[in-house]
Amino acid sequence: MKKIRLGMMGGGIGAFIGDAHRRASRITNDYDLVGGVFDVDYDKALEFAQQQNIDSNRTYATIDDFINGELALPEEERIQAVSIVTPNFLHYSFAKKLLENNFHVICEKPMTTTVEEAEDLERIVKESNLTFCLTHTYTGYPMIRQMKELIKEGVLGDIQRVDAQYYQGWINSIIHGTDSRITGIWRLDPKHAGISSCMGDIGVHAFNLIEYTTGLKVQEVLSDLSSVKEDVQLDLDGTVLLRFNDKLKGVIRASQVAAGEENNLSIGVYGSKASLKWEQENPNFLYLISDSEPTKVYKPAHGYNSTFAEESHVMPSGHPEGIYEAFGNLYKGAAKAIRSQDLHDGEFPTVTDGVRGMKFIYSVVESNAKGNTWTKI
Amino acid sequence: MKKIRLGMMGGGIGAFIGDAHRRASRITNDYDLVGGVFDVDYDKALEFAQQQNIDSNRTYATIDDFINGELALPEEERIQAVSIVTPNFLHYSFAKKLLENNFHVICEKPMTTTVEEAEDLERIVKESNLTFCLTHTYTGYPMIRQMKELIKEGVLGDIQRVDAQYYQGWINSIIHGTDSRITGIWRLDPKHAGISSCMGDIGVHAFNLIEYTTGLKVQEVLSDLSSVKEDVQLDLDGTVLLRFNDKLKGVIRASQVAAGEENNLSIGVYGSKASLKWEQENPNFLYLISDSEPTKVYKPAHGYNSTFAEESHVMPSGHPEGIYEAFGNLYKGAAKAIRSQDLHDGEFPTVTDGVRGMKFIYSVVESNAKGNTWTKI
Amino acid sequence: MKKIRLGMMGGGIGAFIGDAHRRASRITNDYDLVGGVFDVDYDKALEFAQQQNIDSNRTYATIDDFINGELALPEEERIQAVSIVTPNFLHYSFAKKLLENNFHVICEKPMTTTVEEAEDLERIVKESNLTFCLTHTYTGYPMIRQMKELIKEGVLGDIQRVDAQYYQGWINSIIHGTDSRITGIWRLDPKHAGISSCMGDIGVHAFNLIEYTTGLKVQEVLSDLSSVKEDVQLDLDGTVLLRFNDKLKGVIRASQVAAGEENNLSIGVYGSKASLKWEQENPNFLYLISDSEPTKVYKPAHGYNSTFAEESHVMPSGHPEGIYEAFGNLYKGAAKAIRSQDLHDGEFPTVTDGVRGMKFIYSVVESNAKGNTWTKI
Amino acid sequence: MKKIRLGMMGGGIGAFIGDAHRRASRITNDYDLVGGVFDVDYDKALEFAQQQNIDSNRTYATIDDFINGELALPEEERIQAVSIVTPNFLHYSFAKKLLENNFHVICEKPMTTTVEEAEDLERIVKESNLTFCLTHTYTGYPMIRQMKELIKEGVLGDIQRVDAQYYQGWINSIIHGTDSRITGIWRLDPKHAGISSCMGDIGVHAFNLIEYTTGLKVQEVLSDLSSVKEDVQLDLDGTVLLRFNDKLKGVIRASQVAAGEENNLSIGVYGSKASLKWEQENPNFLYLISDSEPTKVYKPAHGYNSTFAEESHVMPSGHPEGIYEAFGNLYKGAAKAIRSQDLHDGEFPTVTDGVRGMKFIYSVVESNAKGNTWTKI
Repeated sequence: MKKIRLGMMGGGIGAFIGDAHRRASRITNDYDLVGGVFDVDYDKALEFAQQQNIDSNRTYATIDDFINGELALPEEERIQAVSIVTPNFLHYSFAKKLLENNFHVICEKPMTTTVEEAEDLERIVKESNLTFCLTHTYTGYPMIRQMKELIKEGVLGDIQRVDAQYYQGWINSIIHGTDSRITGIWRLDPKHAGISSCMGDIGVHAFNLIEYTTGLKVQEVLSDLSSVKEDVQLDLDGTVLLRFNDKLKGVIRASQVAAGEENNLSIGVYGSKASLKWEQENPNFLYLISDSEPTKVYKPAHGYNSTFAEESHVMPSGHPEGIYEAFGNLYKGAAKAIRSQDLHDGEFPTVTDGVRGMKFIYSVVESNAKGNTWTKI
Repeated sequence: MKKIRLGMMGGGIGAFIGDAHRRASRITNDYDLVGGVFDVDYDKALEFAQQQNIDSNRTYATIDDFINGELALPEEERIQAVSIVTPNFLHYSFAKKLLENNFHVICEKPMTTTVEEAEDLERIVKESNLTFCLTHTYTGYPMIRQMKELIKEGVLGDIQRVDAQYYQGWINSIIHGTDSRITGIWRLDPKHAGISSCMGDIGVHAFNLIEYTTGLKVQEVLSDLSSVKEDVQLDLDGTVLLRFNDKLKGVIRASQVAAGEENNLSIGVYGSKASLKWEQENPNFLYLISDSEPTKVYKPAHGYNSTFAEESHVMPSGHPEGIYEAFGNLYKGAAKAIRSQDLHDGEFPTVTDGVRGMKFIYSVVESNAKGNTWTKI
Repeated sequence: MKKIRLGMMGGGIGAFIGDAHRRASRITNDYDLVGGVFDVDYDKALEFAQQQNIDSNRTYATIDDFINGELALPEEERIQAVSIVTPNFLHYSFAKKLLENNFHVICEKPMTTTVEEAEDLERIVKESNLTFCLTHTYTGYPMIRQMKELIKEGVLGDIQRVDAQYYQGWINSIIHGTDSRITGIWRLDPKHAGISSCMGDIGVHAFNLIEYTTGLKVQEVLSDLSSVKEDVQLDLDGTVLLRFNDKLKGVIRASQVAAGEENNLSIGVYGSKASLKWEQENPNFLYLISDSEPTKVYKPAHGYNSTFAEESHVMPSGHPEGIYEAFGNLYKGAAKAIRSQDLHDGEFPTVTDGVRGMKFIYSVVESNAKGNTWTKI
Repeated sequence: MKKIRLGMMGGGIGAFIGDAHRRASRITNDYDLVGGVFDVDYDKALEFAQQQNIDSNRTYATIDDFINGELALPEEERIQAVSIVTPNFLHYSFAKKLLENNFHVICEKPMTTTVEEAEDLERIVKESNLTFCLTHTYTGYPMIRQMKELIKEGVLGDIQRVDAQYYQGWINSIIHGTDSRITGIWRLDPKHAGISSCMGDIGVHAFNLIEYTTGLKVQEVLSDLSSVKEDVQLDLDGTVLLRFNDKLKGVIRASQVAAGEENNLSIGVYGSKASLKWEQENPNFLYLISDSEPTKVYKPAHGYNSTFAEESHVMPSGHPEGIYEAFGNLYKGAAKAIRSQDLHDGEFPTVTDGVRGMKFIYSVVESNAKGNTWTKI
């Protein structure tokens, strides 16, 4: 099968997330990176292209050059899909232009910086036949997909409580550093990071996993955010109370200053009959607990898993696949969509998931600003 | 050394918690159970005494008989301390009478049913020279004591977040049972259980561990409680936002309907330099995490622990001691107090801890009733 | 019910294992320690008796005094059972005298120093109506008992491999210490420790767990032992290949110089249909693994366990009981035997288990001495 | 940088291990698969090439065609390195021809079917300037590399014991299946699998990890192998005693019939000062245990790790990379060698590691055949 011709916005020399996207795009062999706008500094972009063995003619200086250049090519050579891995504030305008010029889009999170922009992208995507994939990487883990399927099957009975956590510690060392680097860190600067640091960057992952695995929608939030130090303007830590339909409640806890935590993302969904628990740092283990039977531990690559979970894993059981495979599963899902192949429900996060995420972030910040009151999402 | 002569209120045939107190009292060999009021049914009390090989002359029908009978004995034969393991609503009146007649008291949790009663007991204890021990069992675990000591030493730097959880699932099977046994379960009946089920029974343990390990005091709470089903009058599940001094925040999550959970009590204290995490179901492991060094796992019976932690453990390293040893450590602490021996800070929970617990429960219920608003504790 | 009147040989001031036996004897409230020969130094024995509140008239200077003194008492006052917690080389002669004078015996491990002595005790016990309990503590854990029952039920199919390990590190620090304390450590001196250190002290526990849980008998061993340093005379480390009936094979690994290991005793039994794994340092978790179903985790205090496992646990699920409860379960089993109550199969280790253990140690040492050849057990 | 032009022998439609090699080769973007001999059925090979978008002109029918075809191309187009993923018995002849015609070789394990063949390849490689990479995948894990470095630094003191395990259960379901599929399984047929199943396939991985991490060489083995059922001709399970220089001992345990085990490969290296333990199913955790300090848990992506370990990991800490990253690290190492870049010690397994592996397998089988006697390796 022909590989999908992929472009990339951003992700040049030294860019971590661009490299991650490229690895993810290669792992299932469905994409070929053939061009892009890799750097605002065009010389650096060219140097990067040479390193990566990419044609310099398809290394563009601006997004407009990119669009014009590619549209000038015959359709069978033209880039089909574009990964956006620029700083956050460019996501919206780049995605909009690309969609309007008929390119599929794979976009880093957060999708936009405001709810309005997110809804605008959603409208554009819906009016087109294009694929839009938002890389909420964690939904690509096989056991998260098994969790979604088990819940859909009704294994838990009625859901009674939902609980997700995302704890990191890395900002801690910054704000307590002796060199006062705070002002230099763009993530702590509202102009570049948007209205939230902790909730916008990682709380939204916990939120996304909750809606992804349960199929439920959060209706209202009540949040309590903390910026820890006087001179920090954005939240670095917080708790969000959740209210779903039918009085179902839940909670999200997130922190970027939980010293010593790495990427401790976990989720528990508690039902009337049984419950499911999963932790990102040991992602190949899914725990089904109930009052009447021994705890069951699901692992990838077993006949007892759902088709969806099994298709998300390649190695034999007991061989840990990790974050790149999860990431690659999203790229694979987008490839299937681009090729109009049949998709499982939830095979990659869509533009609508991006809108939900932005709404979550905005409502959480609003609740906190209003003195910790319930706020619609 | 002479054993302390122990009496018991309640705890007769079939009483689980009475048996647990007796095991705890025997483990360190500091007590001898010699009498009590074991049952409201005097015949059953006598049968129990015979089973336990207790003198029938010191098996009393009522607390007044007990007090009169014991006071009539010469001091060197008289019961010195009394364990109260009756239903909750009797704790206050029994404790009061015993203290007023000069008996040391070891009391099951919750100490009373109202804050006022709790404060009354506190006053009485303070005006006496008597020992009052509230059995918050989990503070007896060696690694909880090590955690307290490490925090006191300043290993964590400034505390930035506190997070505790107590998840159980057992009430779940009751409220979803086909036999509608809800009305028969006294714990779900406000008349017997007081104003709270989940927070009063287990949330308060999480609260107590937080104040115990950190030495900090919660100032305000904002709670969101859930009774899950229409016909249940008390909270079975909830989240409590915490506010300490100096803008420090935290959260307690508790549930009695988290299907499949057993006694999943855990605590994390996150500081500017490092963090500590502990889980009750593997109580011999204490995790110190930081951004700059490998995670350190503390276990009992090692020279690297504090004196207090080491004195709370007897077996060589790698031999798991469990809940009875934790419980026994509280009885040991009370024995040391009764004998006027030197105590470590935090060797057993006092009447003041009982007051804190009652205030926690009342403020949590109030916050929820007032539409999830901040409420002083 | 009347408590059993217990005596003790050894276990005076500062004796760790005597204290452990006393705690175990108290935990289920079936015994009352009323006398013994606590120390070779009679003054110290008296001091110990005073500390423990034991009658000085029943604190004897020698075992002969003990036997004469107790036999002189009326039967309803006389000590019924005796715990032997002396140095190993006295176990045999003390046990023999006690049994011949009609005392039940609870004996620390190893039962004797030679196979012949062990067989002699076995003969004496069989010709009497007396209870002999050897404290192989680990068989008292509820999940080991559940493991035994699951295997008996046939859950594993045919057993195909057995694998047990006991790793400690504590002797390591001794043999590498700068003060050459080796000569002073009685455990490394063949005169006091017998023919083996590592296998005699801990390898035999692994061996006992294998025969206990599987119900199978080892027929032959091939061993490879190591004393690590030139000047150490006994084995401190080794591997033992096992051969059972029907070509079934297995292996025991044990070490006292595995630096950093505490009491890392584990066992895996692998069958044609499924396998069971257990680790002493987290003794409340039993893992049933199979190729076709999610791993099942058994924990104490659940209806899915066998009666025997459930009777070996008191606390509600999720409350870790530990080594003392395991130990106490053996004392409880012995009490039931002494009172002629119905016993579960395997409720405490008998004199015959002691004989098996001695045969294991002797055959292991012989195999190693003969150049690692197969040796009958 | 130009990608290395890669060829492949075997690995056509449906081939699991070929797919794994291709994923590994893509992950670091150092290779481009441009041709090969993908299948003995040439039509299928062409179909595969089309699927993978490979030029049909470079899809050859035989290895001779491959060599002739590629040598006829100008050097700057010619395939530089070839992955051999054929059935085992072809490894030797293919590798020999490729090396003799100046192609770098990346070869699946086992390298050959006999020691002589292995030594022959070793000779050829040494006389050339070619890179030969044997894909002992597990040596690519970052924490295995950290383990190697910590041992090299002397953190453990003198090594006193080495213990490795590789347990699988998958053959179990075959030999106990009702359809008697045994004869059809090539792995159980000596003609195709060579002289050993369990030790040849997985025991050798445990052996390789031991020599890789410790830098020590095993001198002699004593083995005890089991084929479990009468009609199975090869070993499916076994234990191997190891003897190193200086009386150091160790043990390898391996099984393909440990029901329920997936790929439970683990290693422990025990030193006079401390010990290190690692498990493949949670490969991002490395445990350093000692008698005097809390257990330390090393994880990837931290400044406390060695350069070599850090270069083997890309994602931020707490994001689990898995088996493909480990595999990719070997391909990366081979790429560095092919490009004559500086290598870390142990960056990929060489032909000499392949010789060691074959010698291990042969000596293990010989020891077992000679009645479990010590045999030189």
